[in-house]
Amino acid sequence: MDDFYTLSELAEKCGARVQGNGDKQITGLNTLQNAQQHELSFLANPAYAKYLQTTQAGAVILSPDAALGFSGNALILDNPYLAYARLSSLFDPDIGGSEGIHPSAVVNDSAIVDPSAAIAANVVIEAGVQIAAGVRIDAGTVVGHDSILGAGVHLHRNVTVCHGVTIGDRTIIHTGAVIGGDGFGNAHADGRWHKIAQIGGVVIGCDVEIGNNTCIDRGALGNTEIHNGVRLDNLIQIAHNVIIGENTAIAAGVGISGSTKIGKNCTIAGAAGFAGHLTIADGTFISGMAMITRSITKPGSYSSGTGFMESREWRKNVVRFRQLDDLARRVKQLEKQ
Amino acid sequence: MDDFYTLSELAEKCGARVQGNGDKQITGLNTLQNAQQHELSFLANPAYAKYLQTTQAGAVILSPDAALGFSGNALILDNPYLAYARLSSLFDPDIGGSEGIHPSAVVNDSAIVDPSAAIAANVVIEAGVQIAAGVRIDAGTVVGHDSILGAGVHLHRNVTVCHGVTIGDRTIIHTGAVIGGDGFGNAHADGRWHKIAQIGGVVIGCDVEIGNNTCIDRGALGNTEIHNGVRLDNLIQIAHNVIIGENTAIAAGVGISGSTKIGKNCTIAGAAGFAGHLTIADGTFISGMAMITRSITKPGSYSSGTGFMESREWRKNVVRFRQLDDLARRVKQLEKQ
Amino acid sequence: MDDFYTLSELAEKCGARVQGNGDKQITGLNTLQNAQQHELSFLANPAYAKYLQTTQAGAVILSPDAALGFSGNALILDNPYLAYARLSSLFDPDIGGSEGIHPSAVVNDSAIVDPSAAIAANVVIEAGVQIAAGVRIDAGTVVGHDSILGAGVHLHRNVTVCHGVTIGDRTIIHTGAVIGGDGFGNAHADGRWHKIAQIGGVVIGCDVEIGNNTCIDRGALGNTEIHNGVRLDNLIQIAHNVIIGENTAIAAGVGISGSTKIGKNCTIAGAAGFAGHLTIADGTFISGMAMITRSITKPGSYSSGTGFMESREWRKNVVRFRQLDDLARRVKQLEKQ
Repeated sequence: MDDFYTLSELAEKCGARVQGNGDKQITGLNTLQNAQQHELSFLANPAYAKYLQTTQAGAVILSPDAALGFSGNALILDNPYLAYARLSSLFDPDIGGSEGIHPSAVVNDSAIVDPSAAIAANVVIEAGVQIAAGVRIDAGTVVGHDSILGAGVHLHRNVTVCHGVTIGDRTIIHTGAVIGGDGFGNAHADGRWHKIAQIGGVVIGCDVEIGNNTCIDRGALGNTEIHNGVRLDNLIQIAHNVIIGENTAIAAGVGISGSTKIGKNCTIAGAAGFAGHLTIADGTFISGMAMITRSITKPGSYSSGTGFMESREWRKNVVRFRQLDDLARRVKQLEKQ
Repeated sequence: MDDFYTLSELAEKCGARVQGNGDKQITGLNTLQNAQQHELSFLANPAYAKYLQTTQAGAVILSPDAALGFSGNALILDNPYLAYARLSSLFDPDIGGSEGIHPSAVVNDSAIVDPSAAIAANVVIEAGVQIAAGVRIDAGTVVGHDSILGAGVHLHRNVTVCHGVTIGDRTIIHTGAVIGGDGFGNAHADGRWHKIAQIGGVVIGCDVEIGNNTCIDRGALGNTEIHNGVRLDNLIQIAHNVIIGENTAIAAGVGISGSTKIGKNCTIAGAAGFAGHLTIADGTFISGMAMITRSITKPGSYSSGTGFMESREWRKNVVRFRQLDDLARRVKQLEKQ
Repeated sequence: MDDFYTLSELAEKCGARVQGNGDKQITGLNTLQNAQQHELSFLANPAYAKYLQTTQAGAVILSPDAALGFSGNALILDNPYLAYARLSSLFDPDIGGSEGIHPSAVVNDSAIVDPSAAIAANVVIEAGVQIAAGVRIDAGTVVGHDSILGAGVHLHRNVTVCHGVTIGDRTIIHTGAVIGGDGFGNAHADGRWHKIAQIGGVVIGCDVEIGNNTCIDRGALGNTEIHNGVRLDNLIQIAHNVIIGENTAIAAGVGISGSTKIGKNCTIAGAAGFAGHLTIADGTFISGMAMITRSITKPGSYSSGTGFMESREWRKNVVRFRQLDDLARRVKQLEKQ
């Protein structure tokens, strides 16, 4: 991170028009409410427009419409939120990796590591691993044998990539994620469970991001697949042989059972659950904590559950839910009379 | 993994009868749809019978009935799925551990490690740990002081076994799992929480499998117990002093609150939740995302929640659920009239 | 842990009155049912009073009322549960850390580590980290650059503190927890997701406890905040810019979406979920698996979901729930007639 950027430099980086002082020095990025004089802010959600006139920000990213009534320094362009996204990395306090292999890292002789890769302290790289240019692997991470990391992949601290996993270019995997753990495969016989070796792999596309402590199981046979551009939040469970289509975004705590295929461009809110062997149409929206037990062929928005209410009221309604079939029959009976 | 097995060799390993060419060389295992000429496949689920006639598989594991109309190479026996489970490990691409202690591992002088154990890079073995024959501990794993690992235990990468944990023979613990972390014990007084030291342990039986990032808390007093043959999937929460009975299988994302006792041979689907201090009968089935708030004395299948539907319809029904008690009273009133 | 404490010593530590033999030697702590002659027990929950007369415990912590009918050795005071909490740490079998830095730990030259801190095997301390007196960091843990650990902080094994995180005095973080991972921030444009760098931090107060494999994301802009005395159980998801008020306790598996503000002294049961940008009043109770989609301004107890029932019955009721709006309309129609 440089000491500062001028407003003109930032305009160039995101394709904006400058209003006001292009030489204004910007050292950070913040919300309208909290930004200081040396910081850039942005207005993307109309609900925050009320903060525009009183913000202390040194400059604000605005749409042409929003800029009409604003006389301060501004970066003006059609999509302020996207501009914020693009400029945000300039102000990231993360130091980044140091090129080369830290002396405490354990790299198997048969691994191929590009000299531009940054391998941090106490990392373990097992046999046969291939690591492309610009890969960054943070402290404590383990890469299992025969895995392949594409150019620019970033594995955060204490990640585990198991054996035989393929990860596409520029994909980011966050701390504690487990890629390629065994799927849950057991055959029941003679009154007990017999383990089924999980001999498939995991193939992750390019420009994917996988959150903290998320688990992606390897295939039982064949691969589990996460396609290009997918976004997975924290603590998600992706079972064996699941396929997630391009650019689908899944919030924290979601569980997807084995062999379910989620389409492209889906949005799945937090803690939703999917049974196994389903197919979900491209562009589907699933609301938080929804329980999806059948395939969805028609894109749309789907939900389950009940709203929350005071527990005292809720308990009465829960009792009635138990009797709901009976209630419906009684209403039908009344209608007949 | 050998280069290949002949069909006759495989038949011997799983107790099958060979149909066709016993010298056929098999190098892998795959689904009927994807298997190639050198691969073995299987038919266990009648839904896939349609793929049998067109499969490219070099041989197929079949029941006697399914084999009637099939003229290709086959392994014939009563339980094809079990045969698949048994043969699967032959084709596992996992390299396995190297006998001995990797130079980068840190093993406390007071630990007792059997010479046949395989301790990988950057493993930490604390004081007083006992490690039996054939144990395999993968890279980055930590075993806390005074823990005991039975013969053939396999701890995957970056597992944490805390102090004073006992693990039975042949148990497998997957990446990121935490065995013996503190339970959630707090006493409320003077407007704040006072920590209760969790001084019990965890005792895990033989032939157990514990999934990625699953947490099993140590007992507050006395032990948390996971009995022989239990199967736990990923991201499961087992609170302090829970007991899980033999051969129970629990899918990903389930949470079990403190001191609840789950019976033997139960099957619990994903993301179900259990309140504390319950007793669940042997052989109970709990469906996905069910909320279990009372003990279950009668084995059976139990569920909660609502089905999913289009969000627009769902919102209307959710409003009515809030009024359900009122609705039931009104129906009763109508019936009186 | 000493070999034993006399009952008088224990009485002094928790402010109790001794009944019986103050020289009685106590070597452990256990439940009324399981305690042996050399162990201390306690009666806090009236449901366990039935075990008092038959307990083998060497002494029992009792309230004055409960002690009336008990002639054995006892520690008598008003809050037996709090006394149990306070004495529990005396009997904790955890060995604790060894002062100084283990030779296998990797500590950046620019980090400041108090000589009284205990840094265990294979720990990584990155650049610019500040570690105060009495900090304990267990094996395999990574502390990211520019993080600050207050006096007496305890990071268990394989914890990850990312960069720029501040942790207050005496806070305990359990195994596998991830503090300061990136929040889930993406802007959608041109048919794909653009990552928003998460440039805020995480500020954790004093006397906080954070459970195994729990994730606390760093702020997108500004900080995620966990205030003094908060208790978080395992596998919890705290998204970016969430604020958790003082002394709130949250059970395992809860998910809290971005920018939601939970008040002080709340109690949130397991696997509840919160949408983003909500405000929850101080002192609110949320029941297990509840789905909270709007702000709560009035303290109270809130719930959602349905009770569990046999799956056969449940399926019928689920069908009726789909028709609930229609059913309500029909009842209204009947009432009109």
